[in-house]
Amino acid sequence: MNCSFSKSKDVEADEDALAAFSPPKLLDEVKEKVLSFVQLQLSRKRKVVVVTSGGTAVPLEHKTVRFIDNFSTGTRGSAAAEYFLQAGYAVIFIHRRKTLMPFRRHLDKNGSKGLTILDMFQLHPESDGSQTLRVDQTQIPQLSSVLTAYQSVKDQEMLLCIEFITLCDYLHYLKVAAEAIHPLGRSAMVFLAAAVADFYVPGYALPEHKIQSANGPPVIHLRQVPKMLGNVAQQWAEVAFVVSFKLETDHSLLVKKAREALVKYKHQVVIANLLESRRTKLEVITVEDHCTLILSEEELNKGGEVEEKLVADLIQRHEQVFRVTWN
Amino acid sequence: MNCSFSKSKDVEADEDALAAFSPPKLLDEVKEKVLSFVQLQLSRKRKVVVVTSGGTAVPLEHKTVRFIDNFSTGTRGSAAAEYFLQAGYAVIFIHRRKTLMPFRRHLDKNGSKGLTILDMFQLHPESDGSQTLRVDQTQIPQLSSVLTAYQSVKDQEMLLCIEFITLCDYLHYLKVAAEAIHPLGRSAMVFLAAAVADFYVPGYALPEHKIQSANGPPVIHLRQVPKMLGNVAQQWAEVAFVVSFKLETDHSLLVKKAREALVKYKHQVVIANLLESRRTKLEVITVEDHCTLILSEEELNKGGEVEEKLVADLIQRHEQVFRVTWN
Repeated sequence: MNCSFSKSKDVEADEDALAAFSPPKLLDEVKEKVLSFVQLQLSRKRKVVVVTSGGTAVPLEHKTVRFIDNFSTGTRGSAAAEYFLQAGYAVIFIHRRKTLMPFRRHLDKNGSKGLTILDMFQLHPESDGSQTLRVDQTQIPQLSSVLTAYQSVKDQEMLLCIEFITLCDYLHYLKVAAEAIHPLGRSAMVFLAAAVADFYVPGYALPEHKIQSANGPPVIHLRQVPKMLGNVAQQWAEVAFVVSFKLETDHSLLVKKAREALVKYKHQVVIANLLESRRTKLEVITVEDHCTLILSEEELNKGGEVEEKLVADLIQRHEQVFRVTWN
Repeated sequence: MNCSFSKSKDVEADEDALAAFSPPKLLDEVKEKVLSFVQLQLSRKRKVVVVTSGGTAVPLEHKTVRFIDNFSTGTRGSAAAEYFLQAGYAVIFIHRRKTLMPFRRHLDKNGSKGLTILDMFQLHPESDGSQTLRVDQTQIPQLSSVLTAYQSVKDQEMLLCIEFITLCDYLHYLKVAAEAIHPLGRSAMVFLAAAVADFYVPGYALPEHKIQSANGPPVIHLRQVPKMLGNVAQQWAEVAFVVSFKLETDHSLLVKKAREALVKYKHQVVIANLLESRRTKLEVITVEDHCTLILSEEELNKGGEVEEKLVADLIQRHEQVFRVTWN
């Protein structure tokens, strides 16, 4: 694993770029929460992983009506967060609002077809004239393990959820979290599963009001989003184990681009996958090796998730770095 | 109310424009559902309202990763649908996937801050070793009326939910529903609360794969979306009572643009509002009159919704047209 490096000019330039995104209103509040969460985990000697999840919205107007987005539902991030928690990691879950959440995602699965979650509840009249709210007991096998796991995570204060909508909020919260885990040294991991926008419209170019149709079809000039991966891996969380993702729709570009990213940003792992097979096939690429994780059709039909294999693989790699460094 | 008109050239041109959006895979299935739902409501002599809700996504790539969207959560449409159902209307609810739904929205309100919905459930060990799933009984006052209303609507088959994601799906489903309510004559209403995109990228201009950052920041040339309001009001659902919405961020444009739309599309009502005050202040604008519906701070604090006033107002107007025509 490549853990030694010198700061490149690129990274410094990118830090300036973040300054161009004005800080979200809740930044101080979020920072305080994250810092005290990390203190708690330090005192309990837990490893901590920052999981980012969901897509980032890029506003096209100041008083935002329209924005550019991507089809990320947070499946990968929310599932991985759950497996990390199961393995004893504390999780800082930085997620796009209204995308999937660890544990709760199992309920949303039921309810995704609209109203069905309401069918789980029944009002039962009691003999004294009052009503009791009951739950459809056929839901038990599905919900009991989820509820048990959720309750345990909650009791042990192992999960901190931070919600964002825009690219700007995301970038600031990521910086806060990556810097906060510094005291944890090599026992921290950063798992960058969020689908971050590649392009945005800079603040000075945004129209004040809703774009008017009367003026004719607009032309949107996009600008490249600064890649913060370099900052995460080389500055903010420089001793942490950093995992990034590459999603492509074109197979010929997949492994090549993953390798390029590893060389450029000097982090530990790239997980590469195609849009079509993202639920069943992941390439785990490091500087030294390259392996493929596959979820078979049989496993998939039994409700298996490729994120379970991924998290197990990453934890093993994290252990190795951890041992090399501290033993 | 202006209900007589001749088809304009504009309308014919716009119908051609719809042909440019290739029909969704589920179109036939949706059509069948909508037609049999309308037959059922006819046999039960119910009025029917088509409610559209949520935003439409506009893809920026063929294998879609990125799209242009807007911040519509479906608050207006889902609330209005509920009040229409309460008033005895059957509802065809054409909504953006994962936006708010009638009845269920009250649960999502609880759960909007992430995980809290899971706290409603408790696993209770029974003396025989089994487990019962219980619900937090403090939720009763809030949930009982929602569940009672939902159950009644379900038993009476008064609600049909049709889900869309893209602009293209939305346009086709709207046409299907607007044409299907034709046999209902003047007892049908169309309530167009969806936040429809004004601009899109035509199919031939879409790149096949994900836009590559390496080629430099892209420029997106948008094209005006054909306004289907004219088709709804003058062709597909020509005798129905048609209500459209105007959302603006600039107050000086609001009423002026609403009046222009009424003249151009020859429908019955425009509801105009500002982004900032959309939950508390609505302008109801017809050819003959113009009134303002206001939800006071006191009403708002008690959990009141401006959609309750809006639906009551519209039903009264619909009654008047209905009577003028049939009595």
